[in-house]
Amino acid sequence: MLRIALGQMEIIPGRPDINSRAMLAMIEEARAGAAHMVVFPEMAIPGYLLGDTWEQQAFLRDCEEYGRRIVAASAGLCVVFGNVGLDWNRTGDDGRVRKYNAFFVAQNGRLWAGDHFPYPFRIKTLLPNYREFDDTRHFYSLRKLAADLGRDIGELLQPVCVEVGGRPLRIGSLICEDGWYDDYSLNPVAEIAAKGPVDLLINISSSPFTLGKQGKRHRVFGKSARETGAPLVYVNNVGVQNNGKTVYTFDGASTVYNRRGQIVASCPAFEPSLRFLDLALSGGDSQEAALPPEDQSMATIYQALSYGAANFLKQIGMERVVIGASGGIDSAVSAALYASILGPENVLLANLPSVYNSATTKSLADDLAKRLGCLYTVVPIQESVDHTIRQLNGAPVVNRATGGQSNLSVTPFITENIQARDRSARVLAGLAAAFGGGFTCNANKSETTVGYSTLYGDQAGFLAVLADLWKHQVYALGRHLNEQVFHSEIIPQGVFTLTPSAELSTEQNVDEGKGDPLIYPYHDYLFRSFMEWWNRATPEDLLGWYASGELEAKLGCEPGLVSKLFPGPAHFIADLEKWWKLYSGMGVAKRIQAPPVLAVSRRAYGFDHREAQNSPYFTARYCDLKERLLAANR
Amino acid sequence: MLRIALGQMEIIPGRPDINSRAMLAMIEEARAGAAHMVVFPEMAIPGYLLGDTWEQQAFLRDCEEYGRRIVAASAGLCVVFGNVGLDWNRTGDDGRVRKYNAFFVAQNGRLWAGDHFPYPFRIKTLLPNYREFDDTRHFYSLRKLAADLGRDIGELLQPVCVEVGGRPLRIGSLICEDGWYDDYSLNPVAEIAAKGPVDLLINISSSPFTLGKQGKRHRVFGKSARETGAPLVYVNNVGVQNNGKTVYTFDGASTVYNRRGQIVASCPAFEPSLRFLDLALSGGDSQEAALPPEDQSMATIYQALSYGAANFLKQIGMERVVIGASGGIDSAVSAALYASILGPENVLLANLPSVYNSATTKSLADDLAKRLGCLYTVVPIQESVDHTIRQLNGAPVVNRATGGQSNLSVTPFITENIQARDRSARVLAGLAAAFGGGFTCNANKSETTVGYSTLYGDQAGFLAVLADLWKHQVYALGRHLNEQVFHSEIIPQGVFTLTPSAELSTEQNVDEGKGDPLIYPYHDYLFRSFMEWWNRATPEDLLGWYASGELEAKLGCEPGLVSKLFPGPAHFIADLEKWWKLYSGMGVAKRIQAPPVLAVSRRAYGFDHREAQNSPYFTARYCDLKERLLAANR
Repeated sequence: MLRIALGQMEIIPGRPDINSRAMLAMIEEARAGAAHMVVFPEMAIPGYLLGDTWEQQAFLRDCEEYGRRIVAASAGLCVVFGNVGLDWNRTGDDGRVRKYNAFFVAQNGRLWAGDHFPYPFRIKTLLPNYREFDDTRHFYSLRKLAADLGRDIGELLQPVCVEVGGRPLRIGSLICEDGWYDDYSLNPVAEIAAKGPVDLLINISSSPFTLGKQGKRHRVFGKSARETGAPLVYVNNVGVQNNGKTVYTFDGASTVYNRRGQIVASCPAFEPSLRFLDLALSGGDSQEAALPPEDQSMATIYQALSYGAANFLKQIGMERVVIGASGGIDSAVSAALYASILGPENVLLANLPSVYNSATTKSLADDLAKRLGCLYTVVPIQESVDHTIRQLNGAPVVNRATGGQSNLSVTPFITENIQARDRSARVLAGLAAAFGGGFTCNANKSETTVGYSTLYGDQAGFLAVLADLWKHQVYALGRHLNEQVFHSEIIPQGVFTLTPSAELSTEQNVDEGKGDPLIYPYHDYLFRSFMEWWNRATPEDLLGWYASGELEAKLGCEPGLVSKLFPGPAHFIADLEKWWKLYSGMGVAKRIQAPPVLAVSRRAYGFDHREAQNSPYFTARYCDLKERLLAANR
Repeated sequence: MLRIALGQMEIIPGRPDINSRAMLAMIEEARAGAAHMVVFPEMAIPGYLLGDTWEQQAFLRDCEEYGRRIVAASAGLCVVFGNVGLDWNRTGDDGRVRKYNAFFVAQNGRLWAGDHFPYPFRIKTLLPNYREFDDTRHFYSLRKLAADLGRDIGELLQPVCVEVGGRPLRIGSLICEDGWYDDYSLNPVAEIAAKGPVDLLINISSSPFTLGKQGKRHRVFGKSARETGAPLVYVNNVGVQNNGKTVYTFDGASTVYNRRGQIVASCPAFEPSLRFLDLALSGGDSQEAALPPEDQSMATIYQALSYGAANFLKQIGMERVVIGASGGIDSAVSAALYASILGPENVLLANLPSVYNSATTKSLADDLAKRLGCLYTVVPIQESVDHTIRQLNGAPVVNRATGGQSNLSVTPFITENIQARDRSARVLAGLAAAFGGGFTCNANKSETTVGYSTLYGDQAGFLAVLADLWKHQVYALGRHLNEQVFHSEIIPQGVFTLTPSAELSTEQNVDEGKGDPLIYPYHDYLFRSFMEWWNRATPEDLLGWYASGELEAKLGCEPGLVSKLFPGPAHFIADLEKWWKLYSGMGVAKRIQAPPVLAVSRRAYGFDHREAQNSPYFTARYCDLKERLLAANR
């Protein structure tokens, strides 16, 4: 039996001092619990998402020094941890000092991973470089190292041999992506196992939470354990890390799989935990444990958002927020979420009516504040908006070359945006400063996709907590908050049945059922195909499916919806092109200046969705197909 | 003699239709000029900086189709061009269809690069993944391909053999980074040359302009030609491409080096050009040409900024701009720059005074408009600011749990930010919409570094055209505009001598010589060490140099300045920590929502400087050294 402790710690990115302190405390606890081994996550000391902080040599030296302190604390037990591995005598492809994403095995004050290997640590073989990952920007890969050394990569993929509890232990060392080899031409698990029996696979990870990832990991990692015939210990961190534009939660959910690929232990999601487990390395298997709960539900989304927002607030030192409460669903869900995190006494709802805001929505906002028991204020904007329009219309514009004088003219559309900016940049920003906090951005993913928002207006805020949820998911989260979190109708029923509307003109009168130009039951799914699919859909694909009658099945929206919405190809095409142009045109320009997005899906806006402000494009095949369809229906 | 045409085209990113049309026109012209060969840049068909558009299969098929049209047009001459190379039967490491950054050689309707190679095209060997580059995110490297095929990489690095003008020609095919192998463990030029004599090296590039890069390229590429004994033809594109947060200019400057590494021809910078050249492949060398002008000067910066802004405006379809004219240097330089691009009749200067703006700056703004001959308006903000302060102070904040009521209080610091947001989000955004254009962000690199600006205030705008220039460079650009561009004092002398100030309070009274807290002759250089250096400096490095007396020499600022500014270590440390915290704290938060930056330096903010919103950090060694220094001076 091997007594192993899973060190599911919270990692604070960029804080080797704090992280190593947390590790030292867990090592003490593991030792007190008579563990033979304690396992910490990938990049436990520096953190993982650091941007270009990897280019600061002083920071690298610091990580090395704190790593030495961990090694020094390994008397009497085996400490496995991730850190940056440095070769000060060699450079990476960028000419800077060479860095590896490394796996350290310490015991009795020394490192054990140097056999069959040029360094006293092992290194990550598969470097992910998709989604939010930038591993190859910073770290040198094993493939390149093998090529440089003129050695076959297989020679470098051998178990780490260490003596634990008086017996030799052959550990297959894996770092995160090494266990997800399906799309690679190289399988590190099989390579290591090919060198003879492996007693234990250890995968140290810093793996951001993504909806649905846990079930997939059970399949993939269970298979590796089964095929290798060795138990697999997966240790992931908790905490929140970000890449500037996108904020990621780390759910931990560290898991041990036995040699048959069954789960025998797991740590709770989203909380630090030192879990002890006695693992059978030969003979009888450890007892199978209950499968952790399914992670596709709204409960998981709520958990991730709540954990993510709470920790992000903590990291930036913000304890109070101001929320523009319009009476609509997005701000109501945002308000309930922040109230559940910070307490209602630290949440100030501000209703900011103009002449276009209905009694309906004003009373819903007021009702929401009452139900939440939070702070509430009303700051009308009409006087300021009127003043602005008067100023802009009235300011003489002088041509200083000719001496001629003219005036500008504010159109109704400009007035809509003036209202939105007046609310956010004038009132909410001022309120937030006076309240001693920040103001939130309540944008959802649907409007973020096509830039249906005003820059420096409703798009502004310190964090866009709902911007990775489609509009229909925002409604579902609202229901979840009422039913499962607050156990009462904290978000008034009227908010759910209200026509979604920006209320910026008489054309958006909710009492007449007028509102957003988005038909969410269709556009949510259309937009998802633009941006969330692994192979993104484009007008060419979509028009082809429309022509062949496959569109609804492909998108996953309600059958019959497309023909109900669009009488013919001309209407379908006009709608498709309108939104595609906004998605790939003005939407990009607005997202460049948008707040950070809290990620939950397989693809969030920001660093996970890199984009250029180029002109919207239609392929030659799209243009041909469009012409044929329109000609046939003329 | 080989008659070669350098196809220095403008590439529009994401527009295979337009780019292939430009290529077909140049092919016609090359044929008419009796060229044996025409050479186009890297990724000539799709463009290079496309974000994740590479994940759209329809776009990839479209690039392939337009590539076939180029091949079909190659009757009677050899057409070398860059495009994405696809293997629809294999995947990349991300599981998507495999893409290569590829080098195509077409002649008489067929492709010639398939000998000794598994594809009918050659592929980029060295994939840059530093600065703004993301090659490994999208493209499969030759190293991985060789490993997958179980072949030595050298076997895949052989010349392309083609018959030109009746004689066989062995071409060493290089794509951009392949020619910059110094930091890599593999030298593609040497590998190709090792297989026997090479008649011609061709490097097709899509190489963003960076100040000082041209001189370095002459050294590196000249050396390759000399060592290989073959002339080297370098073809780069012109145009503007962006990665969302950062906008890059491409200067072209295509160059031909003879076998002795001397420049024998070059295309003009920043303009499309089809340059014919008769190149001696054996026997006598082509005549050495005059070296292109040095590219370190302010003239080059002006050229890049002017070209970049003009083309970016064209790409986003913007023909008019509004500029908040404060009377200070940043807005004055911005105004002169845009006036030189769009014509003064399309530039509206707006002076937006509060009670804190001096007669001095108001009259400088007015004088600037007169000298430029542009449009001018004055929109006072005091009434709106007072109204906002009254509203914020007066709005009752009700605690809806207790029924208690309180009021918020607007401090002088909050009032400063209210003014800044009132100017930009209320007035400038409204003016821009009514004027039918955008409003500019005039921030420089010094203030961008430490977030010395207001979010949704002076930090807002559609493009930050000066944000890659340190404050002292903005002054120099202003002088250049007066002396070399307008040949008159278009920016009034008073703007240069004015104390830099935001004029947001009585503490920033320019007439009393009060202004910014930044001491530019020192902080410009300090901040540059934080962010522009290849190995970034941190407080640990800087304090070490301060202690050893090396700081001024390291930073490159005026000798003696540091001791003049700081009476002792305590003062030095307080200043250092203050700015480091802003740089790595609030500065990051602000840059996440900042406009795109037009890049000219070795490192611009945005995609070239990836950052996370983490807490400012001081290493253990820094803390030790600080303690020692303070103790010794106590």
